[in-house]
Order: sequence, then structure tokens, then C-alpha cells
Amino acid sequence: MPTTTTVTFDRLKTFIHQSLTKLGLPDSDAMIVAALMAEADLQGSDGHGVSRLPQYARRIRAGGFNVRPDIRVVREQAGTALLNGDNGMGHLVMKRAAEIAIEKARSTGIAWVSSQFSNHAGPASLYARMPLKHDMIGLYFAVGNANHLPPWGGLDMLLSTNPIAAAIPAGGEKPIVLDMATTVAAYGKVKTKALRGETMPEGWMVDRQGKPLTDPKRADEGMLLPLGGMEAGYKGYGLAMIIGLLAGTLGGAAMGKEVIDFNHDDDSVTNTGQAIAVINIAAFGDVGTFKAAVDTLVRDIRGSQRMPGVERIFVPGEHSQETREKRMREGIPIAPALMLGLNKVAGELGMAQL
Amino acid sequence: MPTTTTVTFDRLKTFIHQSLTKLGLPDSDAMIVAALMAEADLQGSDGHGVSRLPQYARRIRAGGFNVRPDIRVVREQAGTALLNGDNGMGHLVMKRAAEIAIEKARSTGIAWVSSQFSNHAGPASLYARMPLKHDMIGLYFAVGNANHLPPWGGLDMLLSTNPIAAAIPAGGEKPIVLDMATTVAAYGKVKTKALRGETMPEGWMVDRQGKPLTDPKRADEGMLLPLGGMEAGYKGYGLAMIIGLLAGTLGGAAMGKEVIDFNHDDDSVTNTGQAIAVINIAAFGDVGTFKAAVDTLVRDIRGSQRMPGVERIFVPGEHSQETREKRMREGIPIAPALMLGLNKVAGELGMAQL
Repeated sequence: MPTTTTVTFDRLKTFIHQSLTKLGLPDSDAMIVAALMAEADLQGSDGHGVSRLPQYARRIRAGGFNVRPDIRVVREQAGTALLNGDNGMGHLVMKRAAEIAIEKARSTGIAWVSSQFSNHAGPASLYARMPLKHDMIGLYFAVGNANHLPPWGGLDMLLSTNPIAAAIPAGGEKPIVLDMATTVAAYGKVKTKALRGETMPEGWMVDRQGKPLTDPKRADEGMLLPLGGMEAGYKGYGLAMIIGLLAGTLGGAAMGKEVIDFNHDDDSVTNTGQAIAVINIAAFGDVGTFKAAVDTLVRDIRGSQRMPGVERIFVPGEHSQETREKRMREGIPIAPALMLGLNKVAGELGMAQL
Repeated sequence: MPTTTTVTFDRLKTFIHQSLTKLGLPDSDAMIVAALMAEADLQGSDGHGVSRLPQYARRIRAGGFNVRPDIRVVREQAGTALLNGDNGMGHLVMKRAAEIAIEKARSTGIAWVSSQFSNHAGPASLYARMPLKHDMIGLYFAVGNANHLPPWGGLDMLLSTNPIAAAIPAGGEKPIVLDMATTVAAYGKVKTKALRGETMPEGWMVDRQGKPLTDPKRADEGMLLPLGGMEAGYKGYGLAMIIGLLAGTLGGAAMGKEVIDFNHDDDSVTNTGQAIAVINIAAFGDVGTFKAAVDTLVRDIRGSQRMPGVERIFVPGEHSQETREKRMREGIPIAPALMLGLNKVAGELGMAQL
């Protein structure tokens, strides 16, 4: 039985960069996407990093992504912009969106940039984190690229896992970074389980009879449960809908029935929508005071009394930041099925294996 | 056994207005608060309307609210403002915050107004709804006024139910309005169960041994469960923390250990923080096109296939808007225990009973 191998961050980034260049992206664009995709794997967002490369390659070859997009602002106010991604890779669109929002927030205190004609951009936290080094808060919203969630009480999958991410700078502590799908489990996690040959816990998905579905290879037969599960899933459903309206409908991007299932369609324009909001902390007070307050909160939480059997209390983002450090030291694990898929891409592109 | 009686919206509003005037609020301020409190009951937010009046009265008499506050902007950029509520009633502070944000969003496209030294302001949706009639989207975040939520895996209640609300205008359909605590159940719902003499379902609260707590009169002995419950409660915990940082810490208001439990403290300044974000739809495209897209989504969802046994699929806000219409016609039900409390206030203030 094949075992999981590990590759370094740099090796992975170079592999992705080379692949995307061979697929037709300009060198600098390929580098931006490669860095963000490898960063996703580094921080443990395994469902949203290099595991998507075979699918991206397929989509590029089918004409489903524009490899030379003219990404441009089509509407603008002092604190807002609407960015048309011209069907380019989502990473390029949302990196640009974050940069625009950061610049605007400097003068207005808050900015919001929405995308239209964007595409899958990887994990939400990548973009929410971008304002951190400018002492700003990042909030990110996205319409997922396949509908796996029905309305509460329904069977028709009209909604996606629409994620939200938030990143808030601290002082001595690491920033607080939340990145969550509005379903109990993200669909990327289902895919990762499938690649690893593992089963899912009960509560992630149900079949159309409402019974638990635990085989990730049967995911197509089931529906994700909204955050809150059987008890309060109407809240997760509500969040998914609001995020979809903010990230999709507001910017004229796809939402509801318009969403293309990019797992089963390689060539249609997805018109994916995402949005990033950036808040300049200095607009509300002294940045040092704010960061000290965040540090205090983190330390109060970390040092608080634990339930029996709980070894440690985490704040959002600690897991992924520790994974990042560990993988930078020890390498990024690539499951056998994924390695097979990546080396198939390498073979097709006439590249060395990973 | 006493039964629930009903009162008209106007009667309830007049009763609250008169009470607050007798408690020392200027007539116009008392009218603003009374209208918002009665509106809360009208839309079915029973835990956040007139049921809080006895507590507000106690707090005003104890000097815990400033009845003549100087509510003022203390920091401002083009798209942002920090509003010092001068320890006035939260309704006054957040109504002002919404008005400022709406004005700013007209020119910048998006605005964010944070409060400090505010107080409990009733249900989040009241304020998120205010931008609707200006064809704008409202988002509202608040730090709850008592910590009932421990960090994930912890026992120390360092967080509150920190709610989020969002209101999005539609065309022919009613607006979509989400208003949710980031716990499985809001603490106001626990209070309502207690007033009605009902038990809570399992899953709302646990005791310090992690066992289900279903007697709302024992709420002080327990902790709320974060949204996601035992399965994915780390997500609700993360949301509660992020919302607290945005609504509290960002504006220099209380968060974490600083939060005053106003159920057990009538006179300390709570330094409550809330925040409202307003997005001008016109900054992103044609308003009519946006509203038509929202209508389509609502109709697609409403008309979609239902699970066996489900009679109807709701969109967020439909329940409360139907409650509003019903109670406008039939009156607002006041449970016996609440009526007793309200008439005690009336007696103390030398007013006619409700």
C-alpha cells in the first residue's frame, strides 16, 4: 500500500508554478497563484491547495478559465469597488481585490471590494489575512463553487457551503483567524476524506432520505448539513444565504440556481463572486491599545479553566498557524491518491514528477 | 392559573413611553426607545422587548443608565465613526449609529459605525433593518450583556451570545432578515422560557459537568452551547469571538472579562459595544436588478422540493415578519409573569396598569 510522502513548500510552489506556466498562464500570474496554493497546503487547508491542481488543469485545457484575463474595476466609490475578474483564476482576482480594499481603507476607514466573473480562489483565510500586516482587519465572503446545501427543510441543493473568514491582528500573540464553511463540514474536507480513503463522521452529510451518509465517495448522492446540524441548522442555512447574497448577488455574480458545479463542468464560465471587507483599526483608536486588548483576550481564554479531558484551549487560527510552522519544518504531506493525480498532470505537461 | 393577555402595539408603546418618561428620560428619547422596544415585541423578539422594562427601570433608578446622555462622534473617517453613547440606553445610541452609517454609505458605498459606552439595545435586527428603506444592506454585530459562553473546551464564561444580524432588501418579496445569536439558543430565549414556566430542549445549555440543563430557572448554574453544538461548536465559538472583537474591542468597548453581567449588576457602567455596517447597493450595480435577483432566489427557495413532513420552506425573516402582521392585527401576548412584573413597575411609577 502506498504511503503519504512529504514535499517542501518551495518544491510544491515550484511544481505548481511550472504546471500553470505550461498551461498558459503568464509567469508572474502563475507565480502568484502557485504561492497562494502552496500557502494553502502549508497552513493545512488541504482541500483548497494543490489538491485542486488536476481540476484546474482540466478546466484550463477545456477553456473554462481565461489564462490571460483583463482584471479590472468596473464600478467604484470611495470605499467600494466592483472587480470584474474576466474569468481568470480566482487567486489573481481576490489578491487584487484585497490590495484595492487595503488602499481604500487607509483613507475611508473601511472598504469593501466585490468580485464578479472570478473563480475558485482557495481558502478564504488567505485573503482575510492580507490586511493584517497593514494593521487592518480582513473579512472575506465567498460563494462556493458547487451547491451542496438545500434550504432548511428542503431537498434541492440551491446553496453552497459559502464560507466566511475573519483575520484580526494581535500584538505579541498570533493573529486571530477564523475560516469556516457555513455547513457542519466544508466540501473540501469531504474531498480530502475521499482522497485519504477515510470515512466521514455522522453529522457531516445526509442522503436524500435524511439518513447519515459517511462514505465520502458517495458524496454526490448526499447533501451537507448546515452549521447547527439537525438542532439549529436554520442558522447555518441563514448564514449561507446571507453570505451568498453579499458575495454573489451584490456583485452581479452567480448565486442559487446560477451556480455552476465546477466538479462536473470544466468549460462554463462560473461567474464566481467573492467579497473582501477591510477595516482600518486606526480609524477607531490607537492600534497599540487595540492589539494589547486582543493579546489580553487571547491569554485570558488560553489560561481559562478547562473541561475534564481537554488538554488545551485554542483560539481560532492557532491550529493552522501551528500546522504552518510544522509543515515549513517537516514538509507538506501529499496523500497517495493526490500524488498520483499530480504526477499524471506532470506527465501530461511533460514535467518532472513531484 | 393566570392566562396570557394581549395588548395592542400602540398601548404597549404608550405604556413603555410613559414609564421611561417617569423614569427621567426626555420625552423624545423615551419615544424612540418605546417605539423600538414595542417593535421588538411586535416582531416576536419576546426576549428583547418589553420583558426588559423591569430591568431597565431598576437600572435607571440605580444610576446604571444615564438618562440624559450626550451621544457624540469621537472619531471619524469618511466611511467610519466611533460613537460614544455616554452610557445612555443602547436604543438611542444604535439608532443614531445607523443614521450616521446610512448617510456615510451614500457617498462612500460602505460605512461602519462602532459604539462604545452604549448599553443593551434590544434585538439586533431592529438596527440591521434601518438601512433597508434606503436601498441599502444592514449588518449588525453586538457584544451581549452577560457572559454565558465559555471558550470551546472550557468552563470559564468569557464570551457572550454575541449576535449578528443582516438585512437585505428585496423587490416584490419581503426583505431577507437574519438575526441570530452565535449560541444554539439566545439567552433571551432562555429568559422567555423561564417567564412562561416552560423547560428548554436538550442542546441549549449544559451544566459545569457537561450534562444537559433543561430548567431555565437553573440557567445561572449552566453555560450556553455555541452554535454547532457538541459537533461543530468550535465554529460558533469562533464566530462569537470575532463578533465580540468587531463589536467590542475595535471600538474600545468591553469584551471578555470586562463584560458586566447586567442581570446581576444594576449600577456599573457596562461600556457595551455594538457595530453597524451599511452597504449601498447602488455602489455595486443597478438596484432594481439586485432586487429582482433577490426575489428570484427567494422564490426558487420557497418553491423548492421539501423533505417528507415539511410543510413549508422559510427564508430568514419570514417568521418574524408574519408574527409582526399577526400581532399588529391580534395584539401582542404578554405572559402572566411578565404582566405581573410590568404592573409592578407601573405601580412604583404611579401609572395605570398595562
